[in-house]
Amino acid sequence: MNATQLFDQIQKKKSFLCIGLDTDPVKIPKHLLKNEHPVFEFNRQIIDATARYCVAYKPNIAFYESLGITGWKSLELTTDYIRKNYPEIFLIADAKRGDIGNTSKKYAETFFKTYSFDSVTVAPYMGRDSIEPFLQYPDKWVILLALTSNIGAEDFQFFTDTKKTKLFQQVLNVSKKWGTTDNMMYVVGATQASMLTLIREQVPDHFLLVPGVGAQGGSLKEVAQYGMNTTCGLLVNSSRGIIYADTGESFAKTAALKSKELQLEMEEYLHTYL
Amino acid sequence: MNATQLFDQIQKKKSFLCIGLDTDPVKIPKHLLKNEHPVFEFNRQIIDATARYCVAYKPNIAFYESLGITGWKSLELTTDYIRKNYPEIFLIADAKRGDIGNTSKKYAETFFKTYSFDSVTVAPYMGRDSIEPFLQYPDKWVILLALTSNIGAEDFQFFTDTKKTKLFQQVLNVSKKWGTTDNMMYVVGATQASMLTLIREQVPDHFLLVPGVGAQGGSLKEVAQYGMNTTCGLLVNSSRGIIYADTGESFAKTAALKSKELQLEMEEYLHTYL
Repeated sequence: MNATQLFDQIQKKKSFLCIGLDTDPVKIPKHLLKNEHPVFEFNRQIIDATARYCVAYKPNIAFYESLGITGWKSLELTTDYIRKNYPEIFLIADAKRGDIGNTSKKYAETFFKTYSFDSVTVAPYMGRDSIEPFLQYPDKWVILLALTSNIGAEDFQFFTDTKKTKLFQQVLNVSKKWGTTDNMMYVVGATQASMLTLIREQVPDHFLLVPGVGAQGGSLKEVAQYGMNTTCGLLVNSSRGIIYADTGESFAKTAALKSKELQLEMEEYLHTYL
Repeated sequence: MNATQLFDQIQKKKSFLCIGLDTDPVKIPKHLLKNEHPVFEFNRQIIDATARYCVAYKPNIAFYESLGITGWKSLELTTDYIRKNYPEIFLIADAKRGDIGNTSKKYAETFFKTYSFDSVTVAPYMGRDSIEPFLQYPDKWVILLALTSNIGAEDFQFFTDTKKTKLFQQVLNVSKKWGTTDNMMYVVGATQASMLTLIREQVPDHFLLVPGVGAQGGSLKEVAQYGMNTTCGLLVNSSRGIIYADTGESFAKTAALKSKELQLEMEEYLHTYL
């Protein structure tokens, strides 16, 4: 999927919502545990209830791999289910990978060949040759960490050089030359919405994946106001605020309501700021 | 395993060698492919041939996860085999993980509970709360990226502030307060051996995991000369130079010879520099 196709979906669905599938067997409704693949069954019901309100799903790989082989099986069932039933969806592997070239090549194979993701989140610390293997796949994306939503973002991402450039700005400046607006986007936490104006000066045309709305406290309105560009340029993620809004038998119905609320708010912002 | 126990092993085996298990089905000898688990069978024979010459094994997780469920099964068989037959071995998951707190918690579960690794390599970009969940496990280690062995290390790791501190130095300065010399070590590439004196000024007592000797061109002598401390403080990794030294039926025998060569060189340096 390229940037134009992604924007098409955003216009069609009037939504730039990404739903994070941070699925934890301990947190899902108890009645699902009798299924052969409870994590997949939870995801399936969430997806069927919410697919009309979102343009992307983002399985958080840590939650699957911590379950071992069972977890990877649930992930496979989930991505296959989305591909078959909702082929318009942009699929993000939230994996925060990145290693020397020959190893990043293997990580790219994992998410783009063994699994059928459109994109994978990557950490920038190891530089260009840790990113490039992911960029060799047509229509696939690297989503590079720039400014994250957690408190630890302050430890290194604001490290500042003699020209007053911060590390996250350096990451944007340097890495934007490695790919294009059709194969690179950046993670910018919603808890850092005040920084979006600054970020848009450096990457006006790139898509941004914005986590941290909801459970982590970020404001959707501010993100839209300061982050939206002429082709939207935003994917805003909500995980816990949607999938765990209700932990009983009506979890999927409640997830649909929460997604719809966000979609309607996004529709308004697309009208106002686009 | 704590630092004293690790040093004990180094003295017993007269070696600070770590062998990287970057096992790729395309590169292993063809006669192994008839096995049910060729990747495990390759590892098993390598391990049996080399365990006397090394103190650590480091499966490179990318190589396993790119194979999907089969790969994770091979990894499980490998770690179980090492635990059962060579309980003295320090086991490193080379995974380069790191995410917000609740997600890093899951990655820690993967490698310390679902699998029985002693340590996992972690990327520092997301800061303290991305590291701490790994430090909650007694006798387990975080191996944090500081200065890596690849060409891309130059992109961000040398980013310099007004006090002339480079990013990798900032990572050392800040992160060394998060753990102890018994649960944190650092990745410092052998291709950066000239930087080891500088690094030892900041972290004199921490263990360093040093990749890049062999295929990547780093010098073992320089690493020992500039990096060794009073309790050795080094684990030097070799992957391709050992496991793919011979791609025929005598691969394990050749791996043993290559490991022994490195062990003998290390024995000399332990005598000279310790």
